[in-house]
Amino acid sequence: MSQTSTVEAARATAPRDLEPLFAPRSIAVVGASRTPGSVGHAITRNLIYGGFTGVVYPINPKAKSILGCRCTPRLSQIGEEVDLAVLVVPAGAVEDVVREAAEHGTKHFVVITAGFKEIGGEGVERERRLKALAQERGLSILGPNCLGVINTAPHVCMNATFAREMPAAGNLGLISQSGALCTALLDYAKGIGMGFSRFISFGNKVDISEIDLLRSLASDPQTNVILMYIEELSAGQAFVEAVNQITHGPKPKPVLAIKTGRTAQGAAAAASHTGSLAGSDEVYEAIMSQAGVIRVESVKELFDYAEVFGDAALPRGRRTAVVTNAGGPGIMATDACIRNGMELTKFQEYTVKSLRFQLPPTASLKNPVDVIGDAKSDRYRAALDAVTADEGTEQVVVIVTPQMMTDLAQIAHVVGEIRGYCGKPVVACLMGLADIAEAVTVLKRHGVPTFTFPEDAMRALAAKSRYAEWVRAPMQPYQQFDCRREAVERLFAAELDAGRTRLVELQALEALGHYGFPLVPYRLARTADEAAEASEQMGYPVVMKISGPKILHKTDVGGVRLNLRDAEAVRQAYNGMIASVQAKLGKDIEIWGVLVQKMLPPGKEIILGMTRDPRFGPLLMFGLGGIYTEALRDVSFRLAPIRGGMAGEMIRGIRSYRLLEGVRGEAPSDLPAIADCLGRLSQLVTDLPQIKELDINPLIVYAEGTGAVVADARIILSE
Amino acid sequence: MSQTSTVEAARATAPRDLEPLFAPRSIAVVGASRTPGSVGHAITRNLIYGGFTGVVYPINPKAKSILGCRCTPRLSQIGEEVDLAVLVVPAGAVEDVVREAAEHGTKHFVVITAGFKEIGGEGVERERRLKALAQERGLSILGPNCLGVINTAPHVCMNATFAREMPAAGNLGLISQSGALCTALLDYAKGIGMGFSRFISFGNKVDISEIDLLRSLASDPQTNVILMYIEELSAGQAFVEAVNQITHGPKPKPVLAIKTGRTAQGAAAAASHTGSLAGSDEVYEAIMSQAGVIRVESVKELFDYAEVFGDAALPRGRRTAVVTNAGGPGIMATDACIRNGMELTKFQEYTVKSLRFQLPPTASLKNPVDVIGDAKSDRYRAALDAVTADEGTEQVVVIVTPQMMTDLAQIAHVVGEIRGYCGKPVVACLMGLADIAEAVTVLKRHGVPTFTFPEDAMRALAAKSRYAEWVRAPMQPYQQFDCRREAVERLFAAELDAGRTRLVELQALEALGHYGFPLVPYRLARTADEAAEASEQMGYPVVMKISGPKILHKTDVGGVRLNLRDAEAVRQAYNGMIASVQAKLGKDIEIWGVLVQKMLPPGKEIILGMTRDPRFGPLLMFGLGGIYTEALRDVSFRLAPIRGGMAGEMIRGIRSYRLLEGVRGEAPSDLPAIADCLGRLSQLVTDLPQIKELDINPLIVYAEGTGAVVADARIILSE
Repeated sequence: MSQTSTVEAARATAPRDLEPLFAPRSIAVVGASRTPGSVGHAITRNLIYGGFTGVVYPINPKAKSILGCRCTPRLSQIGEEVDLAVLVVPAGAVEDVVREAAEHGTKHFVVITAGFKEIGGEGVERERRLKALAQERGLSILGPNCLGVINTAPHVCMNATFAREMPAAGNLGLISQSGALCTALLDYAKGIGMGFSRFISFGNKVDISEIDLLRSLASDPQTNVILMYIEELSAGQAFVEAVNQITHGPKPKPVLAIKTGRTAQGAAAAASHTGSLAGSDEVYEAIMSQAGVIRVESVKELFDYAEVFGDAALPRGRRTAVVTNAGGPGIMATDACIRNGMELTKFQEYTVKSLRFQLPPTASLKNPVDVIGDAKSDRYRAALDAVTADEGTEQVVVIVTPQMMTDLAQIAHVVGEIRGYCGKPVVACLMGLADIAEAVTVLKRHGVPTFTFPEDAMRALAAKSRYAEWVRAPMQPYQQFDCRREAVERLFAAELDAGRTRLVELQALEALGHYGFPLVPYRLARTADEAAEASEQMGYPVVMKISGPKILHKTDVGGVRLNLRDAEAVRQAYNGMIASVQAKLGKDIEIWGVLVQKMLPPGKEIILGMTRDPRFGPLLMFGLGGIYTEALRDVSFRLAPIRGGMAGEMIRGIRSYRLLEGVRGEAPSDLPAIADCLGRLSQLVTDLPQIKELDINPLIVYAEGTGAVVADARIILSE
Repeated sequence: MSQTSTVEAARATAPRDLEPLFAPRSIAVVGASRTPGSVGHAITRNLIYGGFTGVVYPINPKAKSILGCRCTPRLSQIGEEVDLAVLVVPAGAVEDVVREAAEHGTKHFVVITAGFKEIGGEGVERERRLKALAQERGLSILGPNCLGVINTAPHVCMNATFAREMPAAGNLGLISQSGALCTALLDYAKGIGMGFSRFISFGNKVDISEIDLLRSLASDPQTNVILMYIEELSAGQAFVEAVNQITHGPKPKPVLAIKTGRTAQGAAAAASHTGSLAGSDEVYEAIMSQAGVIRVESVKELFDYAEVFGDAALPRGRRTAVVTNAGGPGIMATDACIRNGMELTKFQEYTVKSLRFQLPPTASLKNPVDVIGDAKSDRYRAALDAVTADEGTEQVVVIVTPQMMTDLAQIAHVVGEIRGYCGKPVVACLMGLADIAEAVTVLKRHGVPTFTFPEDAMRALAAKSRYAEWVRAPMQPYQQFDCRREAVERLFAAELDAGRTRLVELQALEALGHYGFPLVPYRLARTADEAAEASEQMGYPVVMKISGPKILHKTDVGGVRLNLRDAEAVRQAYNGMIASVQAKLGKDIEIWGVLVQKMLPPGKEIILGMTRDPRFGPLLMFGLGGIYTEALRDVSFRLAPIRGGMAGEMIRGIRSYRLLEGVRGEAPSDLPAIADCLGRLSQLVTDLPQIKELDINPLIVYAEGTGAVVADARIILSE
């Protein structure tokens, strides 16, 4: 499959229509129970007490009614098609119930029941059969092993979960792989007064995946911010595509995600650099960056960010004004501002004049503006009006410490009003907990994101500024280079036919040549005279390397000679190398000859690599050569194929990037040349899925405008 | 002052006795007021309503009484000695009031009044006079420009602040440079149910410094944990000494500090590496590490840590057991554990057996132990009893998500009980906010530190583990090397007499030689023949460098020659260098001759440096040579003098430390040799305060056991 066709395939998968699952007119609860405390009772209760606008059919062969609702003994006896069936039956009965319901026209299912893949053994087989059934009958199944689904939209009001209660309605759509965590999320959100549009626990995802759910939240008009808790993703490139689409286009929505398992050691034990460095979290980090997901570290951060992202106004830039009634917190806010990559607005002269006119002489008129501890709401209003009117202010942080004179609730009203008309994001920090409750309520009513501490506020604002930049940058297409794919396929086929999966340098270079990589002139010489002749043609000095299908560690067997400066030296080297290799590896070792290359002038050494992740496909790696990659593990990753612009992000993504910008008076390195190679590598490994691993080590890069050259390469094919 | 004497001086300053300030029998409030909302009223009210156990004398020339307390017109009319005077009079009147009170026997003062140094101009002069008065009369003055002081000890119950109310009693002692922040801290602490022993806002510290306050909290039996908010420190080495003493000895107390102003650009614009890298936050970071202060990033973290440190039991190590009723939070806890440098306990077989016997088959018996969503308190008890009994468990994190079945309050009781008898630190995470309030109260009553999220819990536990290690490690003495200090003093005096502050290499090497640094053999040759003779003696190859009092950039003027391999080459080089230097700098340039050095074999290049901070004194720097220091700014700092062991911490403190451990099969570098040089450098710059800057660049370090050698050095003296 070519690069384009992968992408087209991802795009071609039209989003699944899951609306009947989120807004059914009728729901059968199979396994409904009269026993308080049981899951089958909790779900029935949540549906009925939650105010579900459709019909609930409790299915129970023994009970007459549950919570006043007439029970039906079997789903098949309802006598009409039911839009959604929620299953709380024993694991062994799930398949039969789904089959029976499907026969009576139900197409959507929520399987709460646990006892599938997660218990191993028979559970795995049970889940496999359920998946097959879903595919065979074209059903949509959420779960199994999940908490269920909530839709707070007023025309639906569905709480098909066994959570303790219905959450408040709001604009957050949440999907979670962990059911148990969901109850914690609901309780925390309740405590901070945040509400949800949809809330979905997807469990083992036998059928409906996180990508299906992301897309359905993207098209839900009630959802403004998408939150995710995931432990692993089912797909890489499709996830990247889905979030790329969600965060661009006419109505972009931010996707905030917690991905746990950061420290788990990836199983990749491949011998190449790429393989050994691509621990699983690095793959996820690459996927998240590439997708445009805002990754958060904790539940607290998830909701902090959600509050700031919930205000739809995006900042135009990173310049921030701070207004405070206490110096210390102003310094804290400044520190947090700079450390999170934001800037403090440098006020225009008219702003400073206006502040000077209205504030007491002891006030600080520079940013952060200190309105002094005895400030009341009038002084906050004056300061906020002035700084929000400043053309350099792109967002505002208001800090209030509860001093003796502080009229907290009044100040909250003022902040709310100004946020309403100033057209710029405004965030409040009420520094305290006990005495500030009323003011917090006022701010929330006005839709002002409210924090306790400036650090949290600044971190969230910084994330939103980066998101605003991401959204504004047009999505670049996948680059296409003109390459000789068939030639490489023939080359690989010949190698595989000969039983070889590990390509030696000569063939690796040939393959790269077909994809337009900049190569140093080289020739395979089969005799000493041929080597001398080749050297004369390409010019001195030259490098010579032994070439043979089984000779992998050339240096160890005396198979590399550098800096040869005349024909005689080349002849001697040829004969010496052959002798040395035969001495080490035996007379019968197959030798194709010696690779003669023009010796490259020194430049910066770069490593480009690819390893194929068993789940996510080709993973590109970029790093500086030598210790930077090997000892300091300072590398960046992206899934192939990459869009235009992404190679630049990879290059800037390493810690030692400064060394490529030119330090100590050096010229900067030729970054476009590296980016071009990364683009070609992306296309090569996407076009040719038989490449299992690939290392270009080193790519020598020269000063800006003078290019880069592949000095050595290695390719391993899948058997 | 020699290294020892500096230290002795710091030690010799006996802690000031501030007890009368914290536990006075009588307090005069000068400027007490009947007007609600005024500061003079608030303080009087807080003292009286707060339950102060001594006598309050409101001083007001007009009012008869305030809050039922009889007023006295002037302090001098009270008719007895007052232990403490709290001043709320206008700034211009402060000096006179202090003088009057001092004449009547008052020795301790809290000056709430603002309008001193912080307003500049006349305020600076006013503060200077107040300081002089304090010194002249031997008074103790807290402030000016502060919130005041609180002591919750039952025999005192003093709230001499204008905060909104008296905080709860507890074991936290807090000192803060910002008064306004204090009110936020008090409100936040009230919200999370934490209390204080003493709470001190110290403002402009005209007299009483943060060090005095630290020492007084250290000796206060009610205080177990010391919290600080500081914007700047008054002293470096004395602060380090004070905290070193507080965190060691018979009853160590942890010191947690917020230091703001992280991103402020230091003023150091010195041209040397050291100078240009020592931004002010790097100095503070060095002071904090060296002192043993636990630096936190935010108010939230300050109280998170305070809660965990408030439990006096220190963990024996970093091995942590986690018990949870939900998988997702268990993964989060695992991530946070590893990322914070902690370890998960690997359970003994008997523990796993016990868990298997008591938990349901679906439970996860490995660490984290998952007792499954329907767990009630009995199951938590079984799991906690098993894991706390495991000899490998050094601390425990209990996670509870509020599921349908979860008996939160009961579980809280169980956790509290087990913490009571297991003898290991136990921390709880109740993941939620709304429904968990009762359980939190139960846990707090049992003294179990309680968090919402496992990340925060693990971060705090990790800090406590590091603190436990710090406390257990005995404080090493300051190292003493046998050095020829007088010889160096003579050398410097001669240079200064000659009007030179910038020592050239030859003299820098001589000074280092007197302090026992490993030097390569060198000799100053005054003729070509002398150079050749010197080379013959030391053996080839040699390096030659021009030497003259005004020749600073030797390479630029053709004054350096490397790798000279015979006498003839040395003679030619000598003459060539002289000619080249004269051609560039003029015939009259003073040339002492040529420094002939044995050429060093290649090794790792290290930079050692010192720059003298105008406030804190000599700041040592350590880094790898070349781009690591210059471009990547990967360096570590400490104030001199350093204790034994501290050099090792400096060396391990750089990001690229791995390169010194030996990568790609290299032998590790000779770290003791570097540490030895750092120790000698510390002594040199402490002994000789006239050294303003010093760079050893590079120090060439060889493989373990084979030493290090100074290859070049530069010293700048103060004028």
